[in-house]
Amino acid sequence: MKVSALRGVIAKGERRDMTLRTDAEHILQAALDAALPDATVKTVLEGERFGLGRLILVAVGKAAWQMAYSAHQTPGIHVDEGIVITKYGYGKGAIGELVIREAGHPVPDENTFSATEQAIRMVSGLTKEDTVVFLLSGGGSALFELPLISKEELYYLTDRLLASGADITEMNTVRKRLSKVKGGRFAQICAPARVFSIVLSDIIGDPLDMIASGPAYPDASSSEQALAVVKKYGIAVSDLALSCLRIETPKRLDNATTIVTGSVRQLCAAAEAACKRLGYEPVVLTASLTCTARDAGSFLGSIAQFHADDKRSIAYIAGGETVVRLTGDGRGGRNQEIALSAAEKIAGIRDCAVFSFGSDGTDGPTDAAGGYCDGDTDWMLREQGIEIAEVLMRNDSYHALNACGGLIFTGPTGTNVNDLSVVLIRREPVLTE
Amino acid sequence: MKVSALRGVIAKGERRDMTLRTDAEHILQAALDAALPDATVKTVLEGERFGLGRLILVAVGKAAWQMAYSAHQTPGIHVDEGIVITKYGYGKGAIGELVIREAGHPVPDENTFSATEQAIRMVSGLTKEDTVVFLLSGGGSALFELPLISKEELYYLTDRLLASGADITEMNTVRKRLSKVKGGRFAQICAPARVFSIVLSDIIGDPLDMIASGPAYPDASSSEQALAVVKKYGIAVSDLALSCLRIETPKRLDNATTIVTGSVRQLCAAAEAACKRLGYEPVVLTASLTCTARDAGSFLGSIAQFHADDKRSIAYIAGGETVVRLTGDGRGGRNQEIALSAAEKIAGIRDCAVFSFGSDGTDGPTDAAGGYCDGDTDWMLREQGIEIAEVLMRNDSYHALNACGGLIFTGPTGTNVNDLSVVLIRREPVLTE
Repeated sequence: MKVSALRGVIAKGERRDMTLRTDAEHILQAALDAALPDATVKTVLEGERFGLGRLILVAVGKAAWQMAYSAHQTPGIHVDEGIVITKYGYGKGAIGELVIREAGHPVPDENTFSATEQAIRMVSGLTKEDTVVFLLSGGGSALFELPLISKEELYYLTDRLLASGADITEMNTVRKRLSKVKGGRFAQICAPARVFSIVLSDIIGDPLDMIASGPAYPDASSSEQALAVVKKYGIAVSDLALSCLRIETPKRLDNATTIVTGSVRQLCAAAEAACKRLGYEPVVLTASLTCTARDAGSFLGSIAQFHADDKRSIAYIAGGETVVRLTGDGRGGRNQEIALSAAEKIAGIRDCAVFSFGSDGTDGPTDAAGGYCDGDTDWMLREQGIEIAEVLMRNDSYHALNACGGLIFTGPTGTNVNDLSVVLIRREPVLTE
Repeated sequence: MKVSALRGVIAKGERRDMTLRTDAEHILQAALDAALPDATVKTVLEGERFGLGRLILVAVGKAAWQMAYSAHQTPGIHVDEGIVITKYGYGKGAIGELVIREAGHPVPDENTFSATEQAIRMVSGLTKEDTVVFLLSGGGSALFELPLISKEELYYLTDRLLASGADITEMNTVRKRLSKVKGGRFAQICAPARVFSIVLSDIIGDPLDMIASGPAYPDASSSEQALAVVKKYGIAVSDLALSCLRIETPKRLDNATTIVTGSVRQLCAAAEAACKRLGYEPVVLTASLTCTARDAGSFLGSIAQFHADDKRSIAYIAGGETVVRLTGDGRGGRNQEIALSAAEKIAGIRDCAVFSFGSDGTDGPTDAAGGYCDGDTDWMLREQGIEIAEVLMRNDSYHALNACGGLIFTGPTGTNVNDLSVVLIRREPVLTE
């Protein structure tokens, strides 16, 4: 993965200082490199002793290809059979004999179901000498699914729950029971083989049974709770679905071990180191930003305002996963909103930039990973008749950033550990000869 | 002014560590002391040479009493006649022969109008040897007003403009023309006497003609713009109001001089110094926070989360003026929302607190100046069946903070320079003997 050059229109005749942009891309690249699961997957697998039987590899999620690739490269690991299930466009070629499948995200599709079925076949009928290495990353909820009910009813129930205002815990409590693999059931299918899971986490502070609805982790929710949810929201379900909701998920899995790796803290630490190398004094503010994207951008921009007169180059770093408050129907993502919202605050400030990106290379339903803005962004947009406040109101950050060369493109990154936002204030070093 | 002790119920039998709370009150007191206008008013007035005629003092705003007191105490300043117009409860006794008036805020009332009329009488018929010392602070828009139209129509137009979604600039463009004193007209009445204004600013980055609608500052807006605003929102106005809107405000005031003093930066710097004295390593993040209160609190709380394991005592300081997003009809203010929103994030973290307060001693339509929360706040509230997320949704921070001893009371402070928010993480120093 390489960070591509600027896309979008830059105002004609404009000689924009690109030093900050180059710094930003360097920091982004360093953070992404550090957040790749490769080293961790290898270290963990090298330290394990597996049974004498077969070794099946199942990798699921937006970072599935990269995790599978690392596992496959690990000395001493011989994969007998395996499958990678990732998002469309996220597969990067063959890995030995592994089956590489791509499927729908965030909405599961036929490829999701058939790929999941293929994975189930691979882990069916194993013995206790066999091992399943299960590599899980964000996006797995959609990418690993085979419903016990018709897919039409699954879509219907999901829509109804969303429309009723059910939260993610309530959604998962219901969906785990309607799935062949979620809520620990995948590990049950693998039994008596041992399931060794490595989870690349993208959920801040949430329990393991929530990441991809925990296919190999004991379920903390109950049938009773699931039935209460459909009752609470008055959702009609088929007899089949009702009988599914009544069947309990596993509360204990003796054959499964889980190791969690990857975190937004790594992303922050790598960005911090990269900033230092570039001559900035870095301050990591947080690794658990969860507020509204627009307000996070405003806050970061106001930090830049205060430090605009500082005599040294400084960088403020914040990791986390903000939320977009929908007030329009435009195109954009939380990282693009952070950058654009900060742009209003840093308008006219020299040698100052704010950028933000999703470590999986995807920001909202767009092909961009995030956004970059500096002190020139506001007037560059005004020249084109674009008003930032109005764009944010319409949640249309993508088009505005595209109009000022502010989109960040990375393509699929091979990892998925939340987002990173950075404020850069650059002062030229005093040269002494 | 003294910061009063805790009010509200503390869970019975609970031995809460009060060190952080004591630190918070010390920091708050130091910041407020530094933000008092006294020293600046004296320094500025001592450096001036006034005419040989009479000296009239007019002080308006939430800090009016304190500013008038300082001016009155300044050596060499002999006030011939004067008036203080401040908010109910903000007068603190007699100052020589000065008339002390209290009136409605944020909505002007009969006392506003009669006090403003009294001020106008004092400055009418002056000669060019005379001087008006005009001391202005936040709150002046409501406290200094005498409408050219009926007060019923003034209230009606204000309501209609608010309901139509007019912004503060549009509101003021209209209101300046309907007022005898706003938009530079007060200085016109004083002419040919010289008007010497000292403005204690509470508006971040806004122009001087906006503070209290600029009674002694040339107006930047035009009649044309005012007429466009009522047309834009389709608001019906009386013939009298229409003829007022057509009359231009002064664009140049040869008899007026303005000095701006006080700023939230002073508040931040004083808090920074107080933190250092208490053994914290302080970091001032910004002096221009303007995002949503709830999100600012969440952001500050997430900073505390990240630094909870730090080995040294640290403090993060942010000045500014956030906005409350109304989603309910409870009681509270922006500073109370900041503290309560942060409380969710720092739940269970030891030796960590977030507090926030308005420097004028008033936070929203409450008698509190702000809020204080620590790692115990969340469970103390849960014990009483109070859920923070739900309270915030109802904008009811006041009652929740009252239930856990988290309200900060200062009474009128004598100043008005925006808000201050502070994150404290305290580590006991290692004692060596």
